[in-house]
Parts: sequence; C-alpha cells; structure tokens
Amino acid sequence: VSIKIIAAGKTRKNYLLEGIAEFEKRLQKYTRIKLIELPDIKTTEANIEKVIEQEAEQILSRIKPSEKVIALDEKGKAMSTVMFARYLENELRNDLVFCIGGVNGTGEKVKRRADLILSFSGFTFTHQMIRLLLYEQLYRVFNYLEGGKYHK
Amino acid sequence: VSIKIIAAGKTRKNYLLEGIAEFEKRLQKYTRIKLIELPDIKTTEANIEKVIEQEAEQILSRIKPSEKVIALDEKGKAMSTVMFARYLENELRNDLVFCIGGVNGTGEKVKRRADLILSFSGFTFTHQMIRLLLYEQLYRVFNYLEGGKYHK
Repeated sequence: VSIKIIAAGKTRKNYLLEGIAEFEKRLQKYTRIKLIELPDIKTTEANIEKVIEQEAEQILSRIKPSEKVIALDEKGKAMSTVMFARYLENELRNDLVFCIGGVNGTGEKVKRRADLILSFSGFTFTHQMIRLLLYEQLYRVFNYLEGGKYHK
Repeated sequence: VSIKIIAAGKTRKNYLLEGIAEFEKRLQKYTRIKLIELPDIKTTEANIEKVIEQEAEQILSRIKPSEKVIALDEKGKAMSTVMFARYLENELRNDLVFCIGGVNGTGEKVKRRADLILSFSGFTFTHQMIRLLLYEQLYRVFNYLEGGKYHK
C-alpha cells in the first residue's frame, strides 16, 4: 500500500509540522506515505466559491484513476478507530489518497470523486490541524492492525 | 466565566505543549483558563480498573460542588462547533470544569458527576492530543461568540 495525502495550503504552524513529522517517521515502518501540499490561493469574501473550485481541480489533477480516494469533510461519515481500521484493511491492495480541502472546506468535485467521505469530528478544526489528526489516526490504525499497543 | 481543565497525566510531547501554549495565550482575551495535570499513575495490565478509579477520585477531589462539569469521552455526545458554542453561551455564568481521563479513559464516577459527556471524535486519540483539540475548540467557540473570524 502507498498513501498519498493531498492538502490545500501550506502547513505553517511549527508545532503541527513537528507532530506530523513524528508520525510520518513512525509510519514508515508500515507504509510509504507522502504529503502533497498545494500552493495557497488567496481568498477574499468575493471569490470563495471560485477558490474552492480551483483547489478541487488542483487536487483532482493529482489523483490517478486507479487510486482509491478518501475525502475528509466534517459532514462525512463518522467512524470509530476500529471501523476505520477494518475499512483500510480491506483497501490495502489499492493505493490510497486522502484529500483535505483548504480553509473553506473540500470542494464538491473532490467529494464526487471520493470513494469515502470521512469525518474526523462534528467540530470544525483548522484544515492544518486535521493533517496532524489524520497522521496520528493512520499510525494508530496500522499499529492496531499489526497487533501493536499504541491504540490502547 | 472561568474554565478549569483537569487532565490525568502529564503532557510530554513538545509539539502538543507548544500548540496548547499558543491557544492558552489567545484564550486569555476571553476567559481565565487553567490546566491542572494530575500526576501519572503507573498502569499495568492487572491494575487498569484500579488506576481509572484512582484517577477519577483525584479528578473529583478538584471539583467544587458549584462547578459545571463537562467530561470528555469518545462515547459521549458529538456536537458541531456551533452547538458547542450555544451550550457554552448558556453556561457562561457558571464556572466550568473539563475533565480528561488518562490513557485508559474517563472513569465512571467522573461521568456520573458530569453535566455533559462530550465526544470530540468517534476516533480514539491520545488523551494528550485531546487537550490540544479542547484548547483549539474553546478558542474557536469564544472567537465565534465574539463575532471573530477564526471559526471560518
């Protein structure tokens, strides 16, 4: 399995970069994982819809037809860690792509391409913090599937 | 309003300490907030139940009868940021205490004392990461209630 995370906008907070780096390192034991950060697009009140669409196009252009796509969206499906582990276990023969939209959320076109729309929380978090949560959760799931003890 | 967060065990990860410090600073504009970290209790397979109970006793001993208690537990009530904001808005005349259990979760006694059992995610996260999520969400809610733009 290889995992690609496509995220709109740069991660700027140092503490998030540190946290992500830690889990990225720990995940190498289990899988190849790559974070693709798309360039920031300047948003104003007037161009929000257009920016969401542009971001969606950029995300889609980095997805191959054969890849399984999981879009993160707060209105998506909520899962427990064990449910998510079972889902990933079934998909491990595919190359997986996780998509995280920018400040204004994940675009409709990305959601339509997605095989699963996944919600991390009913709460809104910054799209940057969601990256850390995704890395932690992926590590938790792989560790769980391998019979490790981290998930406890 | 004053907010107290009682959490079992020390936060050890640097990136989490940094993130928490950032939101703690930003929250000072809105409220007094205090994090009380209880000493770690060594857990073995054999004493888990006992540790959960001891932690619960320690948490309860730091709660005043007049305080409103919100216990965090992954099986609790899921809310959107706006629902959580409405809830807190109604409770702002009270002193609030958020309780986060240790590695093994939040004890039954704490949940029984709680006015609300709140779930941040169906996913399991480390009890240390939940602290960062709570700080971020509190900042988001206060900013939202004051008409700020962070929540967008």
